[in-house]
Amino acid sequence: MQLRLLISVISTFSLFGNEVYALWPIPRTLQTGTSFVKLSPDFGITVNVNNPPQDLLDAVSRTKAYIQTDKLQRLTVGRGANDSSAIRSAPMLAELRVSLNSGSTVRPIADESVRPLAQRVEGYSLTVPSNGSAAVLTANSTLGLFRGLTTFQQLWYDLSGVTYSYQVPVVISNDTPAFPYRGFMLDTARNFFPVDDIKRTFDAMSLVKINTFHWHIVDSHSFPLQVDQFPEVSQQGAYSSDEVYTPVDIQDIVSYAGERGIDVLVEIDTPGHTAAIASSHPEHIACNQASPWGNFANEPPAGQLRLASAATTQFIASLISSVAKTLPSTLFSTGGDEINSNCYAKDAQTQSDLSASGRTLEQALNVFTQATHKSLTDLGKSPVVWEEMVLSHNVTLPASTVVLVWISSANAASVARKGFKLVHAPSDYFYLDCGAGEWIGNTVGATSWCDPFKSWQKAYTFDPYANIPSSQRSLVLGGQQLLWTEQSSPENLDSIVWPRAATSAEVFWTGATLPDGTPRNGNTALPRLHDIRYRMVNRGIEAIALQPHWCALRPGACNS
Amino acid sequence: MQLRLLISVISTFSLFGNEVYALWPIPRTLQTGTSFVKLSPDFGITVNVNNPPQDLLDAVSRTKAYIQTDKLQRLTVGRGANDSSAIRSAPMLAELRVSLNSGSTVRPIADESVRPLAQRVEGYSLTVPSNGSAAVLTANSTLGLFRGLTTFQQLWYDLSGVTYSYQVPVVISNDTPAFPYRGFMLDTARNFFPVDDIKRTFDAMSLVKINTFHWHIVDSHSFPLQVDQFPEVSQQGAYSSDEVYTPVDIQDIVSYAGERGIDVLVEIDTPGHTAAIASSHPEHIACNQASPWGNFANEPPAGQLRLASAATTQFIASLISSVAKTLPSTLFSTGGDEINSNCYAKDAQTQSDLSASGRTLEQALNVFTQATHKSLTDLGKSPVVWEEMVLSHNVTLPASTVVLVWISSANAASVARKGFKLVHAPSDYFYLDCGAGEWIGNTVGATSWCDPFKSWQKAYTFDPYANIPSSQRSLVLGGQQLLWTEQSSPENLDSIVWPRAATSAEVFWTGATLPDGTPRNGNTALPRLHDIRYRMVNRGIEAIALQPHWCALRPGACNS
Repeated sequence: MQLRLLISVISTFSLFGNEVYALWPIPRTLQTGTSFVKLSPDFGITVNVNNPPQDLLDAVSRTKAYIQTDKLQRLTVGRGANDSSAIRSAPMLAELRVSLNSGSTVRPIADESVRPLAQRVEGYSLTVPSNGSAAVLTANSTLGLFRGLTTFQQLWYDLSGVTYSYQVPVVISNDTPAFPYRGFMLDTARNFFPVDDIKRTFDAMSLVKINTFHWHIVDSHSFPLQVDQFPEVSQQGAYSSDEVYTPVDIQDIVSYAGERGIDVLVEIDTPGHTAAIASSHPEHIACNQASPWGNFANEPPAGQLRLASAATTQFIASLISSVAKTLPSTLFSTGGDEINSNCYAKDAQTQSDLSASGRTLEQALNVFTQATHKSLTDLGKSPVVWEEMVLSHNVTLPASTVVLVWISSANAASVARKGFKLVHAPSDYFYLDCGAGEWIGNTVGATSWCDPFKSWQKAYTFDPYANIPSSQRSLVLGGQQLLWTEQSSPENLDSIVWPRAATSAEVFWTGATLPDGTPRNGNTALPRLHDIRYRMVNRGIEAIALQPHWCALRPGACNS
Repeated sequence: MQLRLLISVISTFSLFGNEVYALWPIPRTLQTGTSFVKLSPDFGITVNVNNPPQDLLDAVSRTKAYIQTDKLQRLTVGRGANDSSAIRSAPMLAELRVSLNSGSTVRPIADESVRPLAQRVEGYSLTVPSNGSAAVLTANSTLGLFRGLTTFQQLWYDLSGVTYSYQVPVVISNDTPAFPYRGFMLDTARNFFPVDDIKRTFDAMSLVKINTFHWHIVDSHSFPLQVDQFPEVSQQGAYSSDEVYTPVDIQDIVSYAGERGIDVLVEIDTPGHTAAIASSHPEHIACNQASPWGNFANEPPAGQLRLASAATTQFIASLISSVAKTLPSTLFSTGGDEINSNCYAKDAQTQSDLSASGRTLEQALNVFTQATHKSLTDLGKSPVVWEEMVLSHNVTLPASTVVLVWISSANAASVARKGFKLVHAPSDYFYLDCGAGEWIGNTVGATSWCDPFKSWQKAYTFDPYANIPSSQRSLVLGGQQLLWTEQSSPENLDSIVWPRAATSAEVFWTGATLPDGTPRNGNTALPRLHDIRYRMVNRGIEAIALQPHWCALRPGACNS
């Protein structure tokens, strides 16, 4: 109704063309004009929601603040100065009206952000008229409103202190994501990342509508997760008492994420990648720090949970349960990658446990995995696993299991064929750490195992449905870029992640086609990616230059 | 005398062995013991120098501050806690005595830092006894004292608030660099870097005794250098009025550098890489922004000085002179790389200038280059050029010319064969930007032109004398790592440069052998490189992790 009314006042109107708002991800529907509006000094955001949750009001406040403080100049020669008279004489926008569609339930954004993926409602509609009439944002959930506020923030530029928008009127009608899962994975075990680094990462993620933080929180190198029921594990297994995520930190992180539309999917990788547990519980770890590590693990230090031991199985199931029950997400990862069979072959206790039970290693793995997964399903949660759990082992998994495809994008089709829901996390497209040389010490000419560097161009070409027949496409939940931190630390977190990790955000929000129906393509993406990068920098996120600034000001001039 | 006295009080004494101070670069002579001293609360540095220059006193103050604030824990499991009783009962060091050897001239560090390379005096001797007697630092110049103070800073660690040194006594006897030129190059034209970023880079450079900042200050993309005599060039050619180095900035940078033992070698690249000058002086630029750029330049935008034009030659010679005369360095680079002949072939004015003078393009280049170089030699300065000036063109160069070898390390021998002094800056070892994907926009699978990433391991193996006969080795002045900034910006400056750029610092200070006479090697380097990286981080330099922290604590555990 409201929408139809607005459309009727629209005069100049253009379909998506050469000049387009630098929105990232680009909405699935978008119509723009050629007029200007500037922000009224009295600009306000009216929230027409009954008993609006505090995190919606906070998001509204942040939106107002960002619009004032972004001070982003347009990426064009002259930075918009050619439009100064048009801007000077432009109508002023005094109001953005925010409301839920009738029948919508009012819940905090944080609650909406952790609903099961199939029930997650992120769509929104947004119109900004050209005549200064109120802009209108509607959605079916507070989370949808949050997404729309984020889009609205990206409409504003600065010219000599004047905040303005160009290419109004803007009409975005029910912009909903093509895929429900759009993630980013961070490894905080190889090197530690303070809470503030993670929160700043959420600021960047939410700016590009990434909705899942896959937190590879512990590994063989360190165990920074403080678990209420098992405090000794981080006491002995963290790098130091300062490099720990306390329960208070975890809740702080989960809240900060939820208020920004982000679900926190914690991973406790099992049974491999667990050497750090040996510092407090040597009885549970086989081949701890065994040498040469290459015989026992894919990287140092070796160390895996004694999966054939009932006591070890009980221990880790309890630990997982103890952590998972404090988290609102319906997803929790038990890992399952890179299990080294030689580690178990050489472990006397595992061999003795296996012969006592009469099980093979694979059978024991099945028992072990079912126990860890029961600790999750008992809490109503779905397990998430790495692809080996379905492609390399014979393990019975709950139908709700979500599989992370990492070894190769080519394996996604195999996972789908087995009927599992999957998330694309392929090393050949989305591993942000590739290409910085081999980190193992005594190597000279060696490149990283997953060379070359995964450029934004490469990641952006990812096809979520490659080799997946249409009957299985509903299994594809989405995808994510990932940062393994052998060679990363807080010092390069932003610069190695941003703006590159924004590419998968658009692949999985916008889908295969641009608003005008043409295929997504790198040529029209690059100017927008530059734009979101500069906006990130203005917000304190150390996103790197993709090209010389000269090129960023001249779309297409630095193509071959 | 003083040294002999100290050696007599040394009790426990070991040659360079498995455990060694994490000094970077490792001194060329070093003897260490196995005892501990801790810093007295009354620790002071006594400067026994007549009329000590202010920058020496400032360096002493900074040294005291760094020792207090570095708070670097040793990289070993337990972070040194195993030594707590030895540290508790260790003698206290109350004094470092700093003096010049008799006969030394007293000059500011900043003056010593810009002397001609052949006259640069950087050596020093340092002893730290194990019994709490005063440590002694001597040198033949204030610059040598500065280098010794830097080494002294690296001897100190923290354990629970106690600042201590281990492996005393330390005796370093006349640690002088193997090569006089140890540089780092930064390109501030493709993307701009504020003064504070450059100063922080100097902090890191001076920590590893890098003594030359090769400042590729302008290029085709932008001209951020404000030139007194030609203010229009940066007014029109800089990215914005905020992205300019004013004369005051330049003097600030040069002073900050000089006080830290760093010579500032500015480069105004000619005749190529000059499109930015066309914004103010289109009359001087051929093929400005010509399309397709690939026909006219190695990267966009195309644009080269009209080298056959007398007016253009006069203009650039004056501009270079105007800049060079404000700089204390005896070195100034006129560039000379990547001259595109098609640009001139298609430029009507150049063709007309050539036929008027009856010169070939090569002859005109010779006239042009002699003019720019005369503007330097008139000021008593030596030109620095990229390798094409001697390997690809027929140009007469002053005997004092220094040649930067960049296209391939293999070309150094050719430059030496021609009798020119050279600086190693090879893209196959020292280019820090390689390996991050092609930055040209519309490329998907493309890697960077100089793939792969140049790892620290690779850079560290560099042999300055490879294929250079001993009779020509005196021509090798040293070398440097370089950051071209197509894909870099202030956001990743520290993380892409450090600690990698420290590797060439050790290659060219320490030379081919470690203090015990064995060849330099990556296995003993890595623990020390980790250490200097963590020290940089504690000083606010965002140097990245080379490995998981777990590995950094366990030397050798993450070798293959």
